Amino acid sequence: MAGGGAAASALSSPWRTLLQRALDANAHLRHSTFFQLATVGACGRPANRTVVFRGFQEHCDKIQINTDARSNKIGEIKSCPFGEICWYFTDSWEQFRISGSIDVIDASSADPAKLQYREKAWFSSSVKSRLQYLGPQPGIPVLDDEHVKGVHLDPLAGPVDAFCLLVLDPEKVDYLNLKSNQRLMFTRQNDDGSNDWMAVKVSP
Amino acid sequence: MAGGGAAASALSSPWRTLLQRALDANAHLRHSTFFQLATVGACGRPANRTVVFRGFQEHCDKIQINTDARSNKIGEIKSCPFGEICWYFTDSWEQFRISGSIDVIDASSADPAKLQYREKAWFSSSVKSRLQYLGPQPGIPVLDDEHVKGVHLDPLAGPVDAFCLLVLDPEKVDYLNLKSNQRLMFTRQNDDGSNDWMAVKVSP
Repeated sequence: MAGGGAAASALSSPWRTLLQRALDANAHLRHSTFFQLATVGACGRPANRTVVFRGFQEHCDKIQINTDARSNKIGEIKSCPFGEICWYFTDSWEQFRISGSIDVIDASSADPAKLQYREKAWFSSSVKSRLQYLGPQPGIPVLDDEHVKGVHLDPLAGPVDAFCLLVLDPEKVDYLNLKSNQRLMFTRQNDDGSNDWMAVKVSP
Repeated sequence: MAGGGAAASALSSPWRTLLQRALDANAHLRHSTFFQLATVGACGRPANRTVVFRGFQEHCDKIQINTDARSNKIGEIKSCPFGEICWYFTDSWEQFRISGSIDVIDASSADPAKLQYREKAWFSSSVKSRLQYLGPQPGIPVLDDEHVKGVHLDPLAGPVDAFCLLVLDPEKVDYLNLKSNQRLMFTRQNDDGSNDWMAVKVSP
């Protein structure tokens, strides 16, 4: 389970300061790093599942998620590369809806920097969590669920083919605080890599 | 906050028995009736938000959600009437992904039975939660957030125009238990109203 990653720096986006505060306030809850990731799936229908926050990518606000390259969502994201995270913090009653484009980084990536991020994510995971990528393909009927036992994984070995890193680049963040009944809408102002966000207080 | 509604009857779908058990096991947590609803939003991008489970519709497995008729999701659902609920139970480590079509029941519905469901949902909500539908339109910039104070609502008055009932009709349920590492996929076999489901044990 990755924690909140590096704390928000002085150069961070305004919403990230709120998010870091929520992560800190809810850190005593195991599920505080779980959120729901919505994508567009088969036949243009919505898909939604719980995933684990694996921290921000270095020096930026991109959000990292580990997943299995054999799961349905990979093909789905490749055909519609957008996602919306819904992250509800159960102790502080805060919701973050974070939408943006998703980059799929699997073993076939041609970008050495991206492959390095993938390798880093692999070694940041526990050996137990790495083992799941050696199991059978997710979603296929189970005939004998005992056959993954006894699988050995060298803790020094790099990522297996089934290991995939998803990177969501936030474009819009809708923040709702149910205790104070306040809602803020953050919108990224441009695509040039600069960290320029507009914030508007809106009706909850 | 609606509870789990009526307990699953002997005629219930097989997944509903699991869901009722999860609701009972997590009932001590205020957020156990919260789930994330994914839809397809503007420009075909996914949208995701936390909503509250308002029970099952009488005599069937349709899932009820109250919402504001002025929120973006109404127009979005009208143009793509499908949703996927992701419901994660934080104490029992169970996830239900429930996908199906969504029916929007607002004041303009021509079906008297549907309008009755809407009225029932209205009176099942607390007066405090009804008051939110008298506030400003969700998502519009706030100039003066004091102006909703002093609004009076007759507790006997029927639903206001902004009150809308969403009804999701489940077609597929993907159940994952992270404690036992078991996953079951339930698929509805037909559209004739009968409660015929197929269950397959799949790899998590």
